[in-house]
Parts: sequence; C-alpha cells; structure tokens
Amino acid sequence: MTAALLTDKYELTMLAAALRDGTAHRRTTFEVFARRLPEGRRYGVVAGTARFLELLSQFTFDAAALESVSGFLDDDTLSYLSSYRFGGDVEGYAEGELYFPGSPVLSVHGTFAECVILETLALSVFNHDSAIASAAARMVSAAEGRPLIEMGSRRTHEQAAVAAARAAYLAGFSGTSNLEAQRRYGVPALGTSAHAFTLLHTTADGPDEAAAFRAQVEALGVGTTLLVDTYDITAGVATAVEVAGPALGAVRIDSGELGVLVRQVREQLDGLGATGTQIVVSSDLDEFAIAALRAEPVDSYGVGTSVVTGSGAPTAGMVYKLVEVDGLPVAKRSSHKESHGGHKKGLRLAKPSGTIVEEVVHPAGRPPTDSAGLESSPLSVDLVRAGEPVGDPGLDAARRLVAAGLGSLPWDGLKLSRGEPAIPTRMA
Amino acid sequence: MTAALLTDKYELTMLAAALRDGTAHRRTTFEVFARRLPEGRRYGVVAGTARFLELLSQFTFDAAALESVSGFLDDDTLSYLSSYRFGGDVEGYAEGELYFPGSPVLSVHGTFAECVILETLALSVFNHDSAIASAAARMVSAAEGRPLIEMGSRRTHEQAAVAAARAAYLAGFSGTSNLEAQRRYGVPALGTSAHAFTLLHTTADGPDEAAAFRAQVEALGVGTTLLVDTYDITAGVATAVEVAGPALGAVRIDSGELGVLVRQVREQLDGLGATGTQIVVSSDLDEFAIAALRAEPVDSYGVGTSVVTGSGAPTAGMVYKLVEVDGLPVAKRSSHKESHGGHKKGLRLAKPSGTIVEEVVHPAGRPPTDSAGLESSPLSVDLVRAGEPVGDPGLDAARRLVAAGLGSLPWDGLKLSRGEPAIPTRMA
Repeated sequence: MTAALLTDKYELTMLAAALRDGTAHRRTTFEVFARRLPEGRRYGVVAGTARFLELLSQFTFDAAALESVSGFLDDDTLSYLSSYRFGGDVEGYAEGELYFPGSPVLSVHGTFAECVILETLALSVFNHDSAIASAAARMVSAAEGRPLIEMGSRRTHEQAAVAAARAAYLAGFSGTSNLEAQRRYGVPALGTSAHAFTLLHTTADGPDEAAAFRAQVEALGVGTTLLVDTYDITAGVATAVEVAGPALGAVRIDSGELGVLVRQVREQLDGLGATGTQIVVSSDLDEFAIAALRAEPVDSYGVGTSVVTGSGAPTAGMVYKLVEVDGLPVAKRSSHKESHGGHKKGLRLAKPSGTIVEEVVHPAGRPPTDSAGLESSPLSVDLVRAGEPVGDPGLDAARRLVAAGLGSLPWDGLKLSRGEPAIPTRMA
Repeated sequence: MTAALLTDKYELTMLAAALRDGTAHRRTTFEVFARRLPEGRRYGVVAGTARFLELLSQFTFDAAALESVSGFLDDDTLSYLSSYRFGGDVEGYAEGELYFPGSPVLSVHGTFAECVILETLALSVFNHDSAIASAAARMVSAAEGRPLIEMGSRRTHEQAAVAAARAAYLAGFSGTSNLEAQRRYGVPALGTSAHAFTLLHTTADGPDEAAAFRAQVEALGVGTTLLVDTYDITAGVATAVEVAGPALGAVRIDSGELGVLVRQVREQLDGLGATGTQIVVSSDLDEFAIAALRAEPVDSYGVGTSVVTGSGAPTAGMVYKLVEVDGLPVAKRSSHKESHGGHKKGLRLAKPSGTIVEEVVHPAGRPPTDSAGLESSPLSVDLVRAGEPVGDPGLDAARRLVAAGLGSLPWDGLKLSRGEPAIPTRMA
C-alpha cells in the first residue's frame, strides 16, 4: 500500500508549478512545530516519529496512484512522481521527548519538490499521535503509579485506534484493549468482559449472573476480571467471590459514583476473604477523574474516550513550515501567526537537580553559550540521512524518555489545572 | 488486509467462554445507539454505514491474525475464528439519516458468537464518521449555500483523514483537499497553494511574490486561486491581479480578522476590474465563524481542524448493546445509564408541511398506531441479509438524505447555539 495519496492536492499542484519554473530544485528546510500548546496545557509529548518514518518508506507513487492524479498534473510532474523517493535528511526531537511552543520538533531537508509533498503525512501523524500521548501522559501522572489500560478503540476511527493505543502506551499506559496494536507494535493487550456476556446468560427464568461468571472463570481461570455491575453491584461482588473463590483476580466497576463504590466493594471483598482481589474501574475517566480517585482503593484504571480524543485537545496543532531556501531564512509576515525563519535546533536547560528551566531554540550550528551554570541538553537527533532511516530506538526507549521528561518538569508543570507552559521557550 | 484485529481483546475472550458453555450459539440482537447527543447538539447525522459494510466483508481471520491471538485462545475458539464470516442480518438507519438520543441506528442479528466480535469495528466506524458528519452538517447549514472545502487532513490521523473527508462530503461539503478520498470514494479534490510556495520564491534580493504567482498561473491557468496573505494582503491582491489579470479565479485569505479583510479585498478586486474573482477564506473556521461571515462577500470557506475533530465532539458516543437473547429482551440495570431491551425500530412523525415532530422508537414489528394525523416514516432499512450486503445506495443518495433531513428540522433545530435535541424521542 502506498502512503503517497495521504496528501493534500495543493502539494502536488505546487510541485507542478515549481517544476515548471525551476524552483522545485532549490534546497529547503521545512520545520514541524506547534505555535502554542492546547489551551492550558503545560507540556506536550512528541509521538509518531517511528510511524512517520515507516510511512515515509512507503511514500512512492505506483501506477494506480499516478493514474489517480493524472487528471490534474502535467507529464513532467507525473514523471517526477513516478521515481519519487525521499532522499533528504530529517532530524528532530526523539519520540517521547517533551516539547513546548516553538520547539523544532522535526526538520526536513531536501529539495522543495521532495519536501513539500510530505506536509500532510507528517502533520497527520505527529498531530494525532502527539495529541494522544500528551493527554495520556497527564493521566499517567494523575494515576501516580497505578496501571492504566487504554480501551478507547470504539471511540475513534478504526485505524486511529491502533495508533492511539501505541501513543498511550508510549506515554506510560500499561496496555490496550486493541488487538491490532498488539500485533503491529507489541503493545500488551488486556481485557476482561462486557455486560453483554452477563446479559447473554439470561433465560426464560430470568438473568443468571452466576452462570456468566462460572463460564468466564472456567474459560479464563480465577485470575480473570469479573464485571460486577450489570444488575446490582453488591450482589455481583458476592456472586463473583462465590463462583471464583477468594483467589479471584479482579472485579471491574463500570458505572456509578466510583469513589463511594470502590470503598464499599473493597470492604466487601476483604470481608469475604478476597483481600488479594483487585478493583478495576472504568466509565468515562479522564485525568481529573483519575486524580479524584487517588485516595480510593483503586488498583487500575480503564480509560477510553478521553485518551483517544486527546482529552479535549484531539489534535496537537503542529504546522509544517518552510523556514529556509537555499540557505536564506524565510518566514510569513502578514499576520500575528508567529514564525521564525531559518533552520533551528532546540536545547533544554536544567538545574543540577535535573529540573528543567528553559527551552532554547537557536539557529542550527549556533547554540547559545550563556547557559549560566545550567546543564544544557541538545534535543535534536538524526532520524533520516540521505533518505535512509537512521534506526528506530523503539517504543521502550520512548517510554523511558516520557517518564524521564515528566520527572524533569518543575512542580507546577505536573498540575492538571490550566496554566502556562511548564517552562518558557526562548528564541536565541 | 483483514479488519478482524480492529477488535478489543475482551470480545474474543467472551467468545471463548461462550463457546465453552454453549451460550455462543444463542440468537442475539445487538443495537447501536447514542444515549445522548454531544452536549448542546440538536441532531446527529448517521455516517459510516458503507464503510462498515465494506470492512465487515474483510472481517475474517487469516493465518497471521490467528497466530497473533493464539497465545490467549483455546483451540475451539481458534477453529471457530478460522472459518468466521458474518452470516447474520443487519438493518439500520440509512447513511445520511438524522438520529436522536435512543435512535436504533443499527441492529445486528445473529448468534452471540458472530455478533459480539463486531462491537469495536462497528463503533469505531460509526462513532468517528457520525461525529464528523454531524459537525459538518452544522457548518453546511451555517454557510447557507456557499461551498465548503474540507482541508483538515493534517489535523487528524492519516487514515481518519480519508474517512473524515468522506463524512464531510456526505454532510454537504463540496470537496476535500485529500487525494486518497478522491481515489477511494470519488470525493472531488480541490486545492490552491500554501505560503511555502510564495516563500520558495525568495532570493538573495528578497521575497518575490509576483514570481510565485506567475509560476502558479503558468502551471494552473488564470482560473487558479492565489494565496495573497504571505506578506501584505493589499499588495498581494494588487500583485495577483497584475500577474493573472482580472479573470483571476480566486484569492485566498488565511489569516487576520476575516470579516474586515474580506470587505476590503472585495472592494479592491472590484476596483481593479476583477469583479468575477472569488474570495476563499480559511484560518481556524468553525460553524460559528462561518455564520459570523454570512454578511460578508465570502465565496467559499476552507475548513480544517474543526470539521475533522467534530468541532468539540470528536466522537458520537454511540454504544453497541445486547438487547435480545433467544427472543427475550435484556438490559443492564445497575446504573442510571438508560437501556431498553428488545429489538427496536425507529420511525419519525412529521407535519403535512414536512417538519418533523417526534422520533418514536418501538418494538420491532409493533409500530404505534396513534400518529394523530401526522405523517409516519419508518427509518430502518435492510443492510445485510444472511451475511450478504443488500446494496449500497451510494454517497450521492446519502448527501440528498442529509439535505432532506436538515430541511425537515423544526426552525430551532438548525440553531448553532447549545440546546435540546430538535425533536423528542419517545420509547413506545
């Protein structure tokens, strides 16, 4: 399958016009960055890098793709596309790195022709995956070490769901409900049971929750998680322990006032001797609901809608801007949209304790020298050289980077409430 | 490619448990519906039907898919999946139909085994596509007949973008920037030019907007749309008409206070004799910004982020619930989540003028007889019979259905402000 048509038409018409007047071969740098974070957010998490690089390798125009664009392109442009393969360089923040307004998250170098047609693909991947990872990281920090399971596939596009599962895992979730994310990316797949399974065990004599629990335990063992809120939670917990015994793995509660219910259920389980049986909660949880349950005996959280929709910020709002042409910095000038020309890199200044203080965005090759006793960490890494991927450090490395990033934030940066970015960005 | 792993793990573990105790072969009906509309919305638009039916035909487990789930399933379950092909019936609201809280948008009939594993796929498709179509329809009604172009691919997952372009077109948009949506669904692809193209024509002597415009006009003809706000809009418009002549197709403005700018640019164009040159606006438009520009001489709107993210409601929130087992109605009872058991159908009551009055959800086969002089239209159509799709009426039919639906709403129903559903739903 080609990724080449995951592209806006104007990129190919610009290519046609630039091939015609010869500007297509000028050397350019395009930069991916966010002018601002979603409202009130204090940091963003870069995600999508490995997915983008994989799609970049599939960005070629086969006969069917060429045929579908032949109606509006001239022969020269079609000929160019027929042999297209990105041959330039890409560098950027490592996947899992934090970013702030203006951070040069990705820099793409090559001819105008080879760079301009990657705009939509690059932005689709980074805007989606970073939005999910940024929201997920807030949930991970709100959960204070308790495991989170991503179960929102049903609330987003079927393929976005797979990428969302990956991005949530990258940000620190423990696993996903999504089987394709397990197959494609190795994200651990987890799951319990739905109300449908309990309801299925209805007969002419009425509901039979015990039969449903017995069937599940027989098939999946006593370590399974029984969903106890189909009819009456107290009766459901009693039946669950009766059927599975006190070694039951967990119960899940998917409705009601969770704080109150969790305490009651914990007491009930303990009273039944099921002291090791865990409590999983779900039901429209977001980072605020997760934080509100911190004081309760919750063992893990199932999170759906809010994580796959970025918890109010479904797109990261990054843009792909031409910043340099044949070595000259260029920038749009007609509005308040802030743009800074030239190829840039980012570095982050931190106190000796590791707490970060400032993001510095500087012209490439000219890092500032005034770090004032602070530790300075460059943030750009090579991703593609002359069209060849440099090597993917993998999802576990990205997970470690997110965890380290969250640990480096000043105290205010982890607040869930709306506020300013955790550290300022300085354009040096 | 198989769609079978676009599934939550628990569907397959429930299947395993139900195969083991024999309940897997009970006859069931699952229903897709929304308990409520997104906050303040007055109607929803059903979208995704044809995409779901296409994916349903790809829902089979090949060797690779079976291998990837073999770690947690027993041999009987793997054997069942290896020959799986949905053989039941599906009926539902036609694609493009309006829906309201409780509308039985889709009913899936078959054994528990064949129905339960479709939950995630069905919901992913309907929740995504309906969210986009519902937001897009509001924009279409706000634009009062002026064309809208969907250009939000870059703000959402790369495959969600293709489905979003389709859903926006279904709701009445004129076209999309997305080339794959054109290839896959025949949605007209449209496009102009980006700031990068103007910036590309920078040389050591400085910017050269005229050179950029000349190149575009030479490649695409004077009917093209020139982007005039890279440097200074007034100078940009003057240069555009100088280069292309008064027959220039259109200019696009992508920044600034659009209301004011559009009036100025219209006057300037008219003064230059370019009375036929149209004005396209873009820049973070949503239904409210579109409506606010109604009094201005805008010719068409480019809409990005807001449409592909559902303008504040990125998911339709539909659920997939078991409502009937072996002819017995079943429903969850432990919470305030409203559920009604039994296989149901919807009909809509309208005045003789065509204005709709009420949505009635009734037990299948038992429509109410008390229509009180109102016209009664049944809303369910057959979609799949014994596993075979009944035939897709196509995207144009769905577009006509959306237009007819919007035309049938009571006056209040088209208000953009937050409110109650346009008509009440009665459970008969």
